[in-house]
Order: sequence, then structure tokens, then C-alpha cells
Amino acid sequence: MQSLRFTAESSTDGVLERDFVVGEVPGVLWSPAGAGRAPLVLMGHGGGNHKRHPAMAGRARRFATACGVHVAVIDAPGHGDRPRTAHDEREVTALRAARDAGEPEGPAARRYSAYLADRAVPEWKATLDALQQLPEIGADGPVGYFGINLGTAIGIPLVATEPRITAAVFGLHWPDVVAEQARQITIPIEFVLQWDDEDIDREAGLELFDAFASAEKTLHANAGKHHDVPRFEVESAARFFGRHLTAPA
Amino acid sequence: MQSLRFTAESSTDGVLERDFVVGEVPGVLWSPAGAGRAPLVLMGHGGGNHKRHPAMAGRARRFATACGVHVAVIDAPGHGDRPRTAHDEREVTALRAARDAGEPEGPAARRYSAYLADRAVPEWKATLDALQQLPEIGADGPVGYFGINLGTAIGIPLVATEPRITAAVFGLHWPDVVAEQARQITIPIEFVLQWDDEDIDREAGLELFDAFASAEKTLHANAGKHHDVPRFEVESAARFFGRHLTAPA
Repeated sequence: MQSLRFTAESSTDGVLERDFVVGEVPGVLWSPAGAGRAPLVLMGHGGGNHKRHPAMAGRARRFATACGVHVAVIDAPGHGDRPRTAHDEREVTALRAARDAGEPEGPAARRYSAYLADRAVPEWKATLDALQQLPEIGADGPVGYFGINLGTAIGIPLVATEPRITAAVFGLHWPDVVAEQARQITIPIEFVLQWDDEDIDREAGLELFDAFASAEKTLHANAGKHHDVPRFEVESAARFFGRHLTAPA
Repeated sequence: MQSLRFTAESSTDGVLERDFVVGEVPGVLWSPAGAGRAPLVLMGHGGGNHKRHPAMAGRARRFATACGVHVAVIDAPGHGDRPRTAHDEREVTALRAARDAGEPEGPAARRYSAYLADRAVPEWKATLDALQQLPEIGADGPVGYFGINLGTAIGIPLVATEPRITAAVFGLHWPDVVAEQARQITIPIEFVLQWDDEDIDREAGLELFDAFASAEKTLHANAGKHHDVPRFEVESAARFFGRHLTAPA
């Protein structure tokens, strides 16, 4: 088992922030300052994005203070501080070409996301193994997952094969590649969808939500385009994790 | 203008509960004990239900304590303490007959709900006029509306023609009669739908959500049947009203 090595540490506004690496994968662990053992939320970032993007850092800090949980984000392959392979470069070029030509990004995004998920899922499992060796997390504490967009493309195959994760927030993705794995998922799900998404067809988004086998699943569909997910969904996700990871049994 | 007359008063757990009548319409006003002027939420009950049903009283108390708002519920025509007309009796008989025969209740429910809405909308406007004469509510304070099921059948035509109401929670209804009025509504909306509703077809529910012209509208679709709306939706509605009625401008 790979162990986790901390490489930097700072503390702001009651939240401890620690850079770490597990093998070659860099991540950040946000924790409520001075907390003892607490639940863990794994958070996957969006496509073209990285572990320390303001949307990740802001959400992680909010989860840490609102729910008292640890939040870990790692760079996806080819993202953030990680090198791009020739394959990554080709896919990024294809995505940019579609965008520049005003064509739908969906086909290239789905293909590249699936490729990244194949590499990222074992990395997440190794990261979780290593995080659970920390005394403030432990091997038997509750674990949640948050990831929309690329975070859903990676998160669905992860959650479908990772029984340690018991609650997850997903959204903003197509069903094509991941619906089959979503059908194997039975844990509580909160799913975010944009009603006027210019990239993801409304029926496609609803089809992916429908695929989850979970007895408790909630769709939050908001008016607006792909990037207009309202800020209050962060609070909603915090409450979701509060209910499922930290509430008394 | 009809004025409001209080007929009974009690106080429990920090919430003042006052029975009132406006003309021939009886209602209950729940208020945070000792509060000064505060926003008002009008709450419509479900079909076959009444102003003091536990689901109404519990939600009203929660809104009063969580958001510090007043909550008013009135009996719909033919419901609670109000007499049934011969027309009411015929429609209730038709609804029961459909249920006993295992047939869809939708056609009878939609027809009867529309009939009730025609009578209830002017009653709600007169009630709001009277409530706004109370110093703790006032003529220029924020007003919200909460109503699912029959509360939506009555609430949509009410909100479509009542500019004093600036935020509303709806849900669990068919688009047939009310979608046209929903298209005139532009205020923030939270809309509750049950993903496995045995009475209301999923596409019909989504069609009604789609009809609202609001720039801010959120669909909360939960796995489960018609009567299985999760309790956490009460908290969500409380936060919705908190954002729109009580948050600083």
C-alpha cells in the first residue's frame, strides 16, 4: 500500500490545508482545524480544472466548516500539476477544435472523460487507502464523494466499485458511458442538472439521474446554462453530507 | 375590505398560534412568539386535507422558527371546517369511486381542483388584504406562497395574478389546467416532484416545471411515490423562503 506524504501545510479561517502526494498523484486535504476523527469527502474536480481551483477550495472549506468533515481533492490525470501524455494532448486539441468551431463538445468530452476515468479510479482507491491510514480519518469512518462534470465521469465508476463510499453528489454529465455503472449504485445520491444546459441535452441528463438504483436519490435541476449552477447548491451538498455522513445513526 | 377577526390563541415552543376568520373563511396564523414585523408565507393545504393537518402545522411551525416568518393557512372551499356544496359532494364521490375502482384519480382531481381554485383565489386575496392590516405583517412586507398538490392548483392562478407574492414553492400537480398560468409567473420557484409518482406521470410533472417563466427556478425530484416527499424538503423550503423573503437585499 502506498502511504501519504504531506508536503505543505497552512491554516486559514479555521481550516487546515495540507498538500499531499500518494505515489505520483498530488492532492490537497482540507480539515476543520483542531478536529478529532471526522468523516471524509473525496472531491473530483471538473474537466480542464484542478485540485486547487477556487470552486474546489471554496467548496472544500465550506464542507469542512459546515459539516466538520475532511475533504480531499486530487489532480485528475493530465490535469493541474500532472504531466500530459501525448494522448491527453490529442484529446485536449480535439476538445478545443470542437469549441472553436462552435460544434458540440460532448463527443470529445465523453471519450476523453472515459479515458481519464480508467486511470483515475485506481488512483482514487490508492488515495483513499492512504488517507484512511491517517488517525484523524481512520479505516472505518464514513466516506462521501462529490464530483460534477468530469468529477461524475470519474466518480460513477469509482463509487460503483468502492463500497467504502456511502453517499455521493453527481451531476452535469451524459449517460452514454456511465449509465450502466450508475445502475449498480444504490447509495443515497444528490444529482445536479442544469435545465437549460447548452452542452448536455435535458433528456440525457434526466436519463443519467434515472439510471441510479438508489432508493434515496434527489435531482436538483436549476434554470440556467451549464456553468450557472447556483451557489446555494454548495449549501445543499453540505447538508446532504451532513445528513448521511455526520448525523447520528 | 373584510377585516380579520382572531377567535382563539395559544402558544407552544416559541410559536404563537391564532385561529382567525376573514368573512366566512377560517384560517390559522402561526407566528414566531414575540417577533416584531416579519415576512408572511401563505400556505395552501393538499386535497382532502385542511388548515390544521399535522403536515401544515408542522411545516408552519418549522418556517416560523427557522425563518422567523408568519405562516397563514386557510381551509379551501369544501375542506376542513367549511361546508360542502352539492357540487363538492359529487366531486368527492367521483374521486372516491375512481380510487375504489383502482382507476387513475387524475381526471377527477384536476377537474375538482380547478373548480376549487376559482373559488379559493379571491378568498386568498381577501385573506392577504386582511392579514396585511395587522401591524406585525404590514402592507409592504415580503410575501411567499407554499402549496403542493391542491395547494399548487390554487397557488398557480393565485400567484399569476397576485404581485404581492414574490417567491413560491409548488409541486405534485398536472400541467393540464395550470401550465398556461404558470407561463405568466416570473418569481423564484422551488418545485417538488416525485420521480415514481403513481398518480402524476413523470413527463407531466416535468412539463409543469418547465412552464414557469422564472429566471430562478429549481426542481427537486425525489425517488419515491406520490406521498413519499422526504421530510428534508421542508428544510429546503425554509431555506428557500429564508433566501427570498428574509435575506438582506
